[in-house]
Amino acid sequence: MTPPIDWKVTARDGEARAGVLRTRRSVIETPIFMPVGTQGTVKGVRFEWLENELDARIILGNTYHLFLRPGPEIIRKIGGLHRFTSWQRSLLTDSGGFQVFSLSDLRKLSEDGVEFRSHLDGSRQFLSPEISMDIQAALGSEIVMVFDECAPGDAGLDTTRSSMEMTARWAERSKKRFDELQLQQMDTGYVEGIFELSGRQALFGIIQGAGHLQLRAESLQRTAEIGFDGYAIGGLSVGEKKSVMYDVLDFLAPKMPPGSPRYLMGVGTPEDLLEAIGSGVDMFDCVLPTRNGRTGGAFTSRGKINIRNARFADDEGPLDPGCSCSVCSRYSLGYLRHLYQTGEMAAAIMISHHNLAFFLATTRGARAAIVSGTFNEFRKRFLAGLENNDADLV
Amino acid sequence: MTPPIDWKVTARDGEARAGVLRTRRSVIETPIFMPVGTQGTVKGVRFEWLENELDARIILGNTYHLFLRPGPEIIRKIGGLHRFTSWQRSLLTDSGGFQVFSLSDLRKLSEDGVEFRSHLDGSRQFLSPEISMDIQAALGSEIVMVFDECAPGDAGLDTTRSSMEMTARWAERSKKRFDELQLQQMDTGYVEGIFELSGRQALFGIIQGAGHLQLRAESLQRTAEIGFDGYAIGGLSVGEKKSVMYDVLDFLAPKMPPGSPRYLMGVGTPEDLLEAIGSGVDMFDCVLPTRNGRTGGAFTSRGKINIRNARFADDEGPLDPGCSCSVCSRYSLGYLRHLYQTGEMAAAIMISHHNLAFFLATTRGARAAIVSGTFNEFRKRFLAGLENNDADLV
Repeated sequence: MTPPIDWKVTARDGEARAGVLRTRRSVIETPIFMPVGTQGTVKGVRFEWLENELDARIILGNTYHLFLRPGPEIIRKIGGLHRFTSWQRSLLTDSGGFQVFSLSDLRKLSEDGVEFRSHLDGSRQFLSPEISMDIQAALGSEIVMVFDECAPGDAGLDTTRSSMEMTARWAERSKKRFDELQLQQMDTGYVEGIFELSGRQALFGIIQGAGHLQLRAESLQRTAEIGFDGYAIGGLSVGEKKSVMYDVLDFLAPKMPPGSPRYLMGVGTPEDLLEAIGSGVDMFDCVLPTRNGRTGGAFTSRGKINIRNARFADDEGPLDPGCSCSVCSRYSLGYLRHLYQTGEMAAAIMISHHNLAFFLATTRGARAAIVSGTFNEFRKRFLAGLENNDADLV
Repeated sequence: MTPPIDWKVTARDGEARAGVLRTRRSVIETPIFMPVGTQGTVKGVRFEWLENELDARIILGNTYHLFLRPGPEIIRKIGGLHRFTSWQRSLLTDSGGFQVFSLSDLRKLSEDGVEFRSHLDGSRQFLSPEISMDIQAALGSEIVMVFDECAPGDAGLDTTRSSMEMTARWAERSKKRFDELQLQQMDTGYVEGIFELSGRQALFGIIQGAGHLQLRAESLQRTAEIGFDGYAIGGLSVGEKKSVMYDVLDFLAPKMPPGSPRYLMGVGTPEDLLEAIGSGVDMFDCVLPTRNGRTGGAFTSRGKINIRNARFADDEGPLDPGCSCSVCSRYSLGYLRHLYQTGEMAAAIMISHHNLAFFLATTRGARAAIVSGTFNEFRKRFLAGLENNDADLV
């Protein structure tokens, strides 16, 4: 059967892989960082910048948020999230599971699904594997994620096992419903006549198990048995220690199906990206570049800086001398600090822009290093650069 | 003596004038709308858009705000507002008089100047004609405004007369200090070797007198006697009736020195712009495009619309079918409404962008009509278009 996506490894360096992912809407070189467009926009950064300068080939949309507003009916009526937002490159949508998990006080979990109260108006809502697939078909994303349950990072073995087993059962239900929806042509994003691709949505499975390696192994096995177009690692960076995350990555990533893309969900810092790439992960998303951008935090090749620092007031240098983005090419630390201190949204707009440029440059740099067989040197140099960071810049 | 700016009328149509204003930094076709960049940025719209798409040739900076933050010392140290912000085209700075006037509860007026409390921290501050000129020299704007006093729109004859006379005395002091500063080369924006221009700052006088025509005439005479590079009409759109403003414009503008640009400060709606252009005004600034943009108000060729209106939820049309800006070319009402409703700053960014495009297109359209001798038809058609507005769009 013709697949919805195509992914090929083009180079390896240790466990690290450089690849090319082709969807019905764009060609994506991996490893790749995917900017987060929760509500159908990447906060503060217009699509024109993402396309023309940052050259993001794939961004995320969040099922939970789009489910609540504007609602899948409106998006289906208009013909999908691409048409609604005008973003024509690839979209990956999460399943809503993680957001609902974050509402721990407001949710009620059962085998069937999750009842929860909207964070907006307290209204009673329900999500299940089937409903999540329905919504993601209405959104018409290129990559759909199964509806999973994510245990807290500090959960014990029993809780984590139950949660992982629920995730496995929900993965089967997700797959079943997803397949029905594709047959019924309910995917608003269907594209006809693409060379060697089906033009349909792809579905990724999610491996859970928190920091328990034996559960991770079992989750991987059960997920791979169902069979997906790609595999994600969920439930990391949710409160566990950094060393636990790195141990899981080292253990798990190399065991994941080698012919499919591997996606580490919601992670993380530039250091985390390099660590995970070293373990064989191909895809990443995280809100850090735009969230920190809004509060004046910039990621740079010399470490994180906080734009509020008074020492920047008359600094004519850029956020990052090592960055060639349109913000660093033109605007000074002093000016950006002034914009932040005076409450101008331009500060959020421009620091978010730079941060995205930095994350994308990080995955591009890693890819180039993998291709040239110098990934370990690249990583060492990159991490050493971050440590040049003055303590009072943090 | 070589002048700092050059302004020539290129066409007339009734009282309306098309002209070309040349400063040391840009060529500006008049009538022109000048976007407001209060704190050294046009709220929500990156300079790149103002330059590359909207082609704004001159923007405003506000002395009051920049005086408080980051302060003239920092801007002088860095070498002026152009260098601080990276905006390389023309800047016009107001004098701070109007902002201080708006702080009516917090200010104390004397012949010497105005003592006031900062709206930020309540600290005691003082502005005078001399200090305003000092600050504007530090900012290095192309066009400096005299420090004036603006009476409320509903002030009686006596109050308005005192205020107007104070403004006249302050205009002399402004001019004297300005000339000294130019001789002392205190202008951070000085540009050497521009053909037929001095490379120095220009100074505009301000005519006050509220709705009292005899005071306006007297203010005009006293201001013109001092002699400035351009003349502004202050004290309109400050609470008086629209008809009063239009009467003042009809009466005053045609009497203003014909060989100098005429600038109507802080006004107004697109209708106001056309009315004033018809009376012979050449330059405008107003916060409406960006302020309304932030609260979901869009100016369109069919009148004002409020993006929150539920009827736009699934509307795939643009904000304004008559607009060719990058927002109207790409984004739908439904999407923009969704962005606004979900609190995304993209809504403010994009509606502000469109509004600026609309205001600039309005002055460009007026200019083209003046050149072709069809200004009255243009104005009629434009105003008729606004009235196509459905009542529930307002």
